[in-house]
Amino acid sequence: MSLSLYETLSVDLDEDGVATLTLDRPGQLNAFDLTMARELERFFLTDARSDDVRAVVVTGAGRAFCAGMDLSSEGNVFGLDESLAPSPEEFRAHYDEPPYHDGLRDTGGRVTLAIHALPKPVIAAINGAAVGIGATMTLGMDIRMASTEARIGFVFGRIGITPEAASSWFLPRIVGLQQALEWVYAADILTADAALAGRLLRSVHPPDELLPAAQELARSFVKGRSPVALGLAKRLLYRHAGSTEPLEAHLSDSLAVFWTSVADGKEGVAAFLEKRPAHFTGKASELPRID
Amino acid sequence: MSLSLYETLSVDLDEDGVATLTLDRPGQLNAFDLTMARELERFFLTDARSDDVRAVVVTGAGRAFCAGMDLSSEGNVFGLDESLAPSPEEFRAHYDEPPYHDGLRDTGGRVTLAIHALPKPVIAAINGAAVGIGATMTLGMDIRMASTEARIGFVFGRIGITPEAASSWFLPRIVGLQQALEWVYAADILTADAALAGRLLRSVHPPDELLPAAQELARSFVKGRSPVALGLAKRLLYRHAGSTEPLEAHLSDSLAVFWTSVADGKEGVAAFLEKRPAHFTGKASELPRID
Amino acid sequence: MSLSLYETLSVDLDEDGVATLTLDRPGQLNAFDLTMARELERFFLTDARSDDVRAVVVTGAGRAFCAGMDLSSEGNVFGLDESLAPSPEEFRAHYDEPPYHDGLRDTGGRVTLAIHALPKPVIAAINGAAVGIGATMTLGMDIRMASTEARIGFVFGRIGITPEAASSWFLPRIVGLQQALEWVYAADILTADAALAGRLLRSVHPPDELLPAAQELARSFVKGRSPVALGLAKRLLYRHAGSTEPLEAHLSDSLAVFWTSVADGKEGVAAFLEKRPAHFTGKASELPRID
Repeated sequence: MSLSLYETLSVDLDEDGVATLTLDRPGQLNAFDLTMARELERFFLTDARSDDVRAVVVTGAGRAFCAGMDLSSEGNVFGLDESLAPSPEEFRAHYDEPPYHDGLRDTGGRVTLAIHALPKPVIAAINGAAVGIGATMTLGMDIRMASTEARIGFVFGRIGITPEAASSWFLPRIVGLQQALEWVYAADILTADAALAGRLLRSVHPPDELLPAAQELARSFVKGRSPVALGLAKRLLYRHAGSTEPLEAHLSDSLAVFWTSVADGKEGVAAFLEKRPAHFTGKASELPRID
Repeated sequence: MSLSLYETLSVDLDEDGVATLTLDRPGQLNAFDLTMARELERFFLTDARSDDVRAVVVTGAGRAFCAGMDLSSEGNVFGLDESLAPSPEEFRAHYDEPPYHDGLRDTGGRVTLAIHALPKPVIAAINGAAVGIGATMTLGMDIRMASTEARIGFVFGRIGITPEAASSWFLPRIVGLQQALEWVYAADILTADAALAGRLLRSVHPPDELLPAAQELARSFVKGRSPVALGLAKRLLYRHAGSTEPLEAHLSDSLAVFWTSVADGKEGVAAFLEKRPAHFTGKASELPRID
Repeated sequence: MSLSLYETLSVDLDEDGVATLTLDRPGQLNAFDLTMARELERFFLTDARSDDVRAVVVTGAGRAFCAGMDLSSEGNVFGLDESLAPSPEEFRAHYDEPPYHDGLRDTGGRVTLAIHALPKPVIAAINGAAVGIGATMTLGMDIRMASTEARIGFVFGRIGITPEAASSWFLPRIVGLQQALEWVYAADILTADAALAGRLLRSVHPPDELLPAAQELARSFVKGRSPVALGLAKRLLYRHAGSTEPLEAHLSDSLAVFWTSVADGKEGVAAFLEKRPAHFTGKASELPRID
């Protein structure tokens, strides 16, 4: 695969299909600016969609993960068009068109929705400060691992704005409603241990061991696995974490089991019965429709 | 009550109305085949609906709970009709009719939806291996207790298929989204301790003490209790774990409190004030409509 | 601000805008009667809406928090009009009109919905027994802290009725579905330690230290903060804990970031860059519409 060139990111792809995406503005503590926003969205919507990429690990260059929005830019620091004044109804009807797509949609949310839509495992390896959008961007990823040096802050309240990047959907489903409310109200910087105790993090690692552990976990998810089964499983879990009735999940998973049972699942069962490794041929870029 | 005869199940009903349902193919480690699927669905939709049954404990005969789908059958091992190819829209419109009802609906999901619809407590007593559908069938039950010998695996990914049995609705609401994603991606076999730490299990017990503990817990839920109040409480909790607004719960629970306040609740309050045991007369088979 | 006079409540407002609301019928262990219900609803819909109130801490006078519904009243002890017999459809269409508004709506739910709708942090300081509505009213509050003397019981099943106050929406999102089901089925009185282990409580404190700790936490949420940003954050977290897709959160939080970015957020960023305290001027009584 040929990877795009990025100004703010670097990408490395190993032989197992584990891509390591590094937020790469170490001189600015990997602060999130509009260039990084556009590049992250592009990476998850294009490069990461390549079937050569099986999983993504996201980390930061240098000592920070991402120090948050770069607040030093001119004009509206969030990149929004202050001449707009839409009603909720107007915005919801046209959010994906000009002038709202680039002038009003939260840039962090465009990134987390692109991560969310990728039918592959995405793991955050939080190596240092993850503040503001640096914290909320990890919520759209499936699993969060951190270094003992990590510091995580949902600090929006301190500068008079609100949590973004669709974090109000993800955070209560990861840590529960009470913990989510407290962290957002407090707007403090959490140590890795506090974030682990609150179930935001899956695990905490010595600094040198974090990235290898995240890559190894990603590898364990994809080696010898069907990309189709993985991609459908991710969609099922997120969609039905938000659906109203178990019947909804049943209607989706019936189709998922059906379509896999006549494709990679047939090979998987045969390999299991013959006690040999399976050779799956399905592609994440060609998932069957299940809902 | 007269219990149906089953090939793959055995049922015992004690004097308190606690039914113990045993998956009973010990020679096959209680593997789930289409006969067991149909019998489990029938048990929860018919026998368990009898007002003589107040709660159900589910366990396995011998050393396994349920070793998963029997993969040795001829043709489509999941029992699906491979000549079908419905769009999601077509399937959703006609899922409960031929040919989809028996040819495409996931058999595990038909079982968990039947368990879910039973307005009585259902407790899994996981005595040994619970793999694949053996694991996901317990998610539709209200509470999971396990023996120290239990091993639990959401292993679908290893054979190229996806989690089923509506597990994508239940699992994130039991263990949170991050843990659900990791277990499904990893597709590993979990020890009882790991499943307890991840909040899948309510408690872990020495093998000999598991079933009595589960039966005792079930008994404590139903002795001296109104079957109507219990059944409505179960419906309220599941429905509003998935509804969008607290107002939805308020509209349902207002009706539930109203209908119980003029029936078993009147007796309950009188008994409380008179410091005597209550004598409830309502039946789970005649629940008022609350939504 | 001038506070209303209440028969069953007392209110104290400190200089930081932290209101302490005390359930104040100590001779009756602060039992919830229809007067208290109407007064609590009124407090949260009117007095607490004053911009002078920044956050609310709720506690009980004497040794109880709230011993539950006063079951000694004449007629229907829940205050419902037993001559009604609406279908769910009829009730849902007219729940906010006579005769249903006062004759059928659960009184506890009217209180928790009023708490829920207040765009400010609300903290329960559970100083003693919190039983029935005394327990469920705290679920509509954002955070629950308790004294070591607290005893908490979702005891509805013991008197033949169901959990109310919209608790079936809140409880599974705070403690997970399995724990919620067990506590409601068991209908037992929980110690503070058990409630902490089950994640119902944020923290447990020595009796003398509970109220100061709750007030201090409330103060830390509001001092130097934008009431608009706080109010919108509360709405985002509750709404999207129940919405179906992350896109829904993105559409709401885009508008929230936009409207704060041109108001209190502009001051917040300037103050941050200038290393000075921010002077926010937005009011919780004038939140922009975001959905």
